[in-house]
Amino acid sequence: MTTTQESAAAMFASVTPEIVEKTYEIIRPHVRKTPVIEAFPKDFGFDLRTRQPMTFKLEFMQHGGSFKARGAMNSVRTREGASNGVVAASGVNHGGAVAYAARQAGVPANIFVPSISSPAKMRKIESFGATLNVSGDLYADALAASESYLENSDAISIHAYDQDATLAGQGTVALEFTQQCDVDTMLVATGGGGLIGGMAAYLQGRTKLVSVEPEASPTLHAALAAGKPVDAPGGGVAADSLAPKQVGQKMFPFAAAYVAEAVLVTDEAIIAAQKQLWDTLRVALEPGGAAAFAALASGAYQPEPDERVGVLLCGANSHAVNFD
Amino acid sequence: MTTTQESAAAMFASVTPEIVEKTYEIIRPHVRKTPVIEAFPKDFGFDLRTRQPMTFKLEFMQHGGSFKARGAMNSVRTREGASNGVVAASGVNHGGAVAYAARQAGVPANIFVPSISSPAKMRKIESFGATLNVSGDLYADALAASESYLENSDAISIHAYDQDATLAGQGTVALEFTQQCDVDTMLVATGGGGLIGGMAAYLQGRTKLVSVEPEASPTLHAALAAGKPVDAPGGGVAADSLAPKQVGQKMFPFAAAYVAEAVLVTDEAIIAAQKQLWDTLRVALEPGGAAAFAALASGAYQPEPDERVGVLLCGANSHAVNFD
Repeated sequence: MTTTQESAAAMFASVTPEIVEKTYEIIRPHVRKTPVIEAFPKDFGFDLRTRQPMTFKLEFMQHGGSFKARGAMNSVRTREGASNGVVAASGVNHGGAVAYAARQAGVPANIFVPSISSPAKMRKIESFGATLNVSGDLYADALAASESYLENSDAISIHAYDQDATLAGQGTVALEFTQQCDVDTMLVATGGGGLIGGMAAYLQGRTKLVSVEPEASPTLHAALAAGKPVDAPGGGVAADSLAPKQVGQKMFPFAAAYVAEAVLVTDEAIIAAQKQLWDTLRVALEPGGAAAFAALASGAYQPEPDERVGVLLCGANSHAVNFD
Repeated sequence: MTTTQESAAAMFASVTPEIVEKTYEIIRPHVRKTPVIEAFPKDFGFDLRTRQPMTFKLEFMQHGGSFKARGAMNSVRTREGASNGVVAASGVNHGGAVAYAARQAGVPANIFVPSISSPAKMRKIESFGATLNVSGDLYADALAASESYLENSDAISIHAYDQDATLAGQGTVALEFTQQCDVDTMLVATGGGGLIGGMAAYLQGRTKLVSVEPEASPTLHAALAAGKPVDAPGGGVAADSLAPKQVGQKMFPFAAAYVAEAVLVTDEAIIAAQKQLWDTLRVALEPGGAAAFAALASGAYQPEPDERVGVLLCGANSHAVNFD
């Protein structure tokens, strides 16, 4: 083997189907088995070539309102040093997930957020018993504050998507989904790519994986075109969950090998998908959580006749719902 | 048998477990199999004596946003004369359900609503292809208009809860729930009582049924105390779905025989339950849809140690969600 091949082989060895299975055994008592429901395109008022129902996995019902609890739980339970405490600089969903996982495992958590974070999000993190640190106006400020904190602490940092334990945890979504139904294809929204990367590592092409990304933040689309993670634009309505600058280094080999396509959807299609999902299934998703469905509803992804399509509804930390 | 006993026996014969099973065969291709998910009291921040998880049935994901599609579908598919057209005077959920069922079966539907109905609700009914008739300011005006229409039409009227076909359709919720999980008890919100009546007719005491009603509209609670359906107060936050004047005549014998208890919850408990369900499970329910859970969260129903409790989340036609 060449050095490049050895390096690639080592990367693939970091998250294998067996590792994802073992991870599921570890985290299963602490995460929700999120259910699936079938619905037809005509229920939503559009047509597809396939006559099969779509199968939706309701992963937004996971602890903390997104799939991120899986990777966080695995990190807290299995990474060396986690018992000393865990630290996260938080996007919308990651901070709550780490706070929840830390409480479950009985370890202290410090979550760093910028001052622009919503009060509801901050309350949620505190409700899980984590220490909330509000640092500066931007995500970069919160990240810098978390790194400064770590210099004088023996806690460990949990990354939102670019660590092996995170990928292995998110990969359990694919394991559970395949246990629940037979689909030919899974549509998955991609930002940093921890979710689709972990699913790709588990599935290894046994189920077709399609990445769905906002045109305004085409992270994996750009990386696949360049042959490596590269900076992509980072705006749009789903920016709070799907717009890091790049996909992770650790997910990229899995995506390059096992993600069949990366399709793009407009902001308008994402907003329309949120409305359609509420009108028809009474689920209230955040923009990033509705993006995968937007690919079907807008025609960005066109299934073959009789293709059975699974749609991952991955997050619901939405501001469009308010019972206060 | 005395005349009273004969009359009671005839009533019980109108909806039997076998009839509910047959009904399920008829409507199954046209309704969604709504999923279940487990969660623990501690996830919501309260304790119960039981250490078992609660099992939630997500019936609000049914067509039209509530269980009512089941009874409407059965009525449209099996009642004599339905092919001439169907008519409903509409509460929040019933009108949409009848409109949906009629479209599926290819029969015309006339839905009568008062002018106070929400624009969103009217749009929903029209989106299913029904003719919308806005008549007067009150529900009673809409009902009178529908009766006047029926005098000159060979269409049939579909009642929201007090007809055999409606009870048999709603009873399929219990059939499906028992197929999906083993629970000792099911908590069900009651207004007109079509849902719990149909479930009681199917379960016949094999699973303990608990009715949950708002203190502001205690329809079954009052009927059980009086030994027959009687007028009850009709206010409170869930008035749009749980506050007809009385429970139905047809459901009452089933409830008297097979509903173990009828517990009451305050408006405050219902609102708190809506918030807890959103915060913890990311489901956005209408007040009536959250009432059954409110009985657990408020302590109005206290399960025994190791009791496995099922909670029916029955409707989500909520005004607290707005993606427009």
